[in-house]
Amino acid sequence: MPRADQERVTFQPMGRRADPQPGQSLLHLAQSAGVGIEAPCGGKGLCGKCRVRPEGAATPLTPAEKALLGSDAQEGLRLACQAALPQGGTVWVPPESRAQRQVILTSGPSGELELDPAVRAFELSVPPAQPPEPEAARERLQAALSQAAGNHLQAPPELPLGLLRALPGLLKQGGELQATLRHDREIVDLTPVGEGSPLGLAVDLGTTTVVAYLCDLNSGQLLAVSSEMNPQVPYGDDVISRMSLCAGDPQGLGRLSAAAVECVNALAMDACAQAGRDPGRILECVMVGNSAMHHIFLALEPASLAMAPYAPVVRGPVEVKARQAGLALSREAWLHWLPLKAGFVGADIVAVALAVGADQIEEPTLILDLGTNGEMVLAAGGRMLACSTAAGPALEGGHIGQGMRGAPGAVERASLELGAAKANLSVIGGEPAVGFCGSGLVSLISCLLNAGILLPGGGFDRERGKGLVRSGEHGLEFVAAPSGATGHGRDLVLTSKDVSEVQLAKAAIRAGAEVLMAEMGVERLERVLLAGAFGNYLDPGEAARIGLFPPVALERIQGVGNAAGVGAVMALLSDRQRRRAEKLARDMGYVELSGHNLFQELFVDSMPFPSDG
Amino acid sequence: MPRADQERVTFQPMGRRADPQPGQSLLHLAQSAGVGIEAPCGGKGLCGKCRVRPEGAATPLTPAEKALLGSDAQEGLRLACQAALPQGGTVWVPPESRAQRQVILTSGPSGELELDPAVRAFELSVPPAQPPEPEAARERLQAALSQAAGNHLQAPPELPLGLLRALPGLLKQGGELQATLRHDREIVDLTPVGEGSPLGLAVDLGTTTVVAYLCDLNSGQLLAVSSEMNPQVPYGDDVISRMSLCAGDPQGLGRLSAAAVECVNALAMDACAQAGRDPGRILECVMVGNSAMHHIFLALEPASLAMAPYAPVVRGPVEVKARQAGLALSREAWLHWLPLKAGFVGADIVAVALAVGADQIEEPTLILDLGTNGEMVLAAGGRMLACSTAAGPALEGGHIGQGMRGAPGAVERASLELGAAKANLSVIGGEPAVGFCGSGLVSLISCLLNAGILLPGGGFDRERGKGLVRSGEHGLEFVAAPSGATGHGRDLVLTSKDVSEVQLAKAAIRAGAEVLMAEMGVERLERVLLAGAFGNYLDPGEAARIGLFPPVALERIQGVGNAAGVGAVMALLSDRQRRRAEKLARDMGYVELSGHNLFQELFVDSMPFPSDG
Repeated sequence: MPRADQERVTFQPMGRRADPQPGQSLLHLAQSAGVGIEAPCGGKGLCGKCRVRPEGAATPLTPAEKALLGSDAQEGLRLACQAALPQGGTVWVPPESRAQRQVILTSGPSGELELDPAVRAFELSVPPAQPPEPEAARERLQAALSQAAGNHLQAPPELPLGLLRALPGLLKQGGELQATLRHDREIVDLTPVGEGSPLGLAVDLGTTTVVAYLCDLNSGQLLAVSSEMNPQVPYGDDVISRMSLCAGDPQGLGRLSAAAVECVNALAMDACAQAGRDPGRILECVMVGNSAMHHIFLALEPASLAMAPYAPVVRGPVEVKARQAGLALSREAWLHWLPLKAGFVGADIVAVALAVGADQIEEPTLILDLGTNGEMVLAAGGRMLACSTAAGPALEGGHIGQGMRGAPGAVERASLELGAAKANLSVIGGEPAVGFCGSGLVSLISCLLNAGILLPGGGFDRERGKGLVRSGEHGLEFVAAPSGATGHGRDLVLTSKDVSEVQLAKAAIRAGAEVLMAEMGVERLERVLLAGAFGNYLDPGEAARIGLFPPVALERIQGVGNAAGVGAVMALLSDRQRRRAEKLARDMGYVELSGHNLFQELFVDSMPFPSDG
Repeated sequence: MPRADQERVTFQPMGRRADPQPGQSLLHLAQSAGVGIEAPCGGKGLCGKCRVRPEGAATPLTPAEKALLGSDAQEGLRLACQAALPQGGTVWVPPESRAQRQVILTSGPSGELELDPAVRAFELSVPPAQPPEPEAARERLQAALSQAAGNHLQAPPELPLGLLRALPGLLKQGGELQATLRHDREIVDLTPVGEGSPLGLAVDLGTTTVVAYLCDLNSGQLLAVSSEMNPQVPYGDDVISRMSLCAGDPQGLGRLSAAAVECVNALAMDACAQAGRDPGRILECVMVGNSAMHHIFLALEPASLAMAPYAPVVRGPVEVKARQAGLALSREAWLHWLPLKAGFVGADIVAVALAVGADQIEEPTLILDLGTNGEMVLAAGGRMLACSTAAGPALEGGHIGQGMRGAPGAVERASLELGAAKANLSVIGGEPAVGFCGSGLVSLISCLLNAGILLPGGGFDRERGKGLVRSGEHGLEFVAAPSGATGHGRDLVLTSKDVSEVQLAKAAIRAGAEVLMAEMGVERLERVLLAGAFGNYLDPGEAARIGLFPPVALERIQGVGNAAGVGAVMALLSDRQRRRAEKLARDMGYVELSGHNLFQELFVDSMPFPSDG
């Protein structure tokens, strides 16, 4: 029943309205109204990121808010996941709390890729039925197609019922038609001639970002790229909080799955709109993503991924009709998910390994995928060993007091002139800064180490940082920008706790890399490849400065862009690459770091920053 | 908008009500209200069978009614397909116009059938995931199943998405489960152990009657048989009128298809209810039927079947997921349609040939399937030749003045005592007679020939038939029962025109058989097998007396029951029999009789009845 206007809640500046339900938090109400509010902890009252300013008769402050809001509570700020406005009112959502479109790296694959796709289109001339023993339409089509395909088909290709039903109508317009054959086994499309090439969609379903690549499967050409924030983000920033939503709410898995599926459908529409093509011509789809994204997308219960011994529901490639997974592509299109390696080494890492050719790398090379989890592969002499570190989201700005994702207002680079009274900040979008994203954090810490303001142990040198380092609520903190120069009117600070978070993350990654080296008997790295959007934004020198990975020559650290997306496109364009990915996933070794003794030891040893500049 | 009660039409004695739409005939209105009225011509005003008695302001008599109703018009009878009651009223539907449940032959297959079904169930113990490299659930299931199946699987069996989603839940209750494997390629069912055998459904979709056989696929046992009149009958009695409905009405095919699909679903439910089983355990379905029933069931445009050169849309076996065809069986069950031979030699004939082992018959044998069409196969020395005659529906009581199907009130057998003043009639259900069904017609004509009342040329001998033969509206007619002894209060008569219809039908069948003999070089038949329900009701001596087929020793004429159903069950229970059916359909020859010179000649020669008794 619609409420009287004064009983509704209006979210500003969006102007969206919604009817509050009994017991419903402002966060859930905002989600129901399509208003994106940052909630990295999944609305559990743990992260303090969903700050809003309600006007009206709000419910009383909760203990979580008292702990997390500090003095901001006096200014009328509340946590959207804790507060409610049962009688209606207005909620102001400040910029830093808004789930925004991010700056996403979506450069497509470059260079020549192998073209040998799962589907092939043939133009056929199907002869009419001839007395005295007139052959049936399907059988005439099958014969014409076998001939066109070179008569090497083992059996007549299958024709799905939907296409069989369309066949008489198609043949009425003369016998000329285009048939698309998949794996020499099944006809997946029938159209009049001249309907254009079959299209393919490769999708990298990241925890944070979803990127779709639209390709012409006749020419192998990349036609368009479309990307969007993963719509699951409002339900929780990391895979753990999303998996716990699935465990705790019977509708959780269905809701998260539907959100991802709809996102891929929207990206397919958008990419086709960019390229002036019809999404109904997409005849093949390849997807990659980490194991949690894979399970949730396919609506597979992810509980086993989160519990020892961390076994997935399925590890090898999954092939299903795309429509069964909810995708609105061509009716008979197939969806191929690249294989996983293990519970925490997903299809995205397999795709990265495929893209960089890890199975053929000779010199010891560390391939680091710095997404929301820190997964890596050590490749040497054709062998591969993978692990996943619970690095946490610090390098993406998570668990950092004023951390944020790579959105407008985020500090992405910092420099510090000797003796200067303030840091020079480079901010995404050129706006006043409102927080740090991962590359900005690494950059700032790297500068502070070089300036001696930050000590290898992680403490601030108050003397060296005079005028910039001060005592804060939780110990010493570095003021990167005063309130007058920020977008939210508060000082932008890097706290000791923030530094500790970065130390924990980089120590986990470095220790993981050293475990892989020890297991494979590699003494020294010859090369580091940084994959993922973050890998590309990161300055190699700064990453080395904070000790993110074992020592390597600076010029041998290389960003490889969205390698997972490139791997997905390779598998879309070539069946041979798809089989190679499967073999690569099987051949790759895997080290489980939880409970690994050497890892624990190396982790502690890796906590300090390197002392040499 | 619901109408006032006085504006509605009430069908009696059913008591069903409906709102008449502008221009809607009483026949269509009755169909919309679920009232079955006989309309063998499909409501075209040609057959005069849909007589009803409307009370209210009916539309004026049409020319078709004036021609077909004769004096009945004065008694207030109308044709439901011509008349309407736009202002509402009551419609009385007399018994002979009601589409009734028929007496259907549904004896199941007897004897030992080969058991080697497409699906096999295995009880498995799936081991839990073990560190340090825990295997995924699907892969553990696949390994356990491969081992149980004897390790001869070429590739790990596929697991459909629906079952993959159910797998974690099933494994939570310990690793014991039952997996059903199809063709060693796909897992089609997963349940806890103890859920019972997989079930199979074989369906014979006849033009008039649909029969479903429920089998246990572990034991091969026939659990239940269920049958029903084909719900397409109210749309037209024969395949031609149903195909023309598909051609003339854009919704026609969808409506006819849905009616057949719903009928099979209802039969599956009923058979399972009889056997105390769950329709969700039906994991495999085999269907047979003539080419028109096959196309319409699968919603394939049947137009090409009705036009030279009579090519089907598909000839070989069709395998689709049962749910795609609309069947509500187990979610992953497959439907297998046996192959057709040609446009007018359908999967039912292939099934009959399989059931009687036509591919191994040595002595010249004519296999006659006397359904709504007259299809036949001549088998000799392992060779087979088939044809279809446009025999028309006379032998099923169609196109006969007082003809009807084998329903209560139908004369099924007649005898004539020498010099008696009336015929002795045996009536289905023991009720007063209201019409003739096929076997009754053959029986009466045979008696009349023996008594010399009917002459070989088809004319009545008025002298010999004194007191029983009289002049009627359309020439001479034989009074089989006077009005006082019938169920509808009118004389039951066999007219000269009725005799001509039977002559046309039997001449077509006999000429077809002689063409096959000539083509195969067979001089004399050694055996005749009569398949189909009609074949079983028919008296072999009477059939021979009217010259339905070339001469053969009386004791070598044999009814083989519902052989099409038996063939369907054989293909359900055995994959080898399914492949045999495919080979048989390929190897069988086919003669197209339309435009065949010898056929025309033989047809004319076969019109007279044999003169010898």
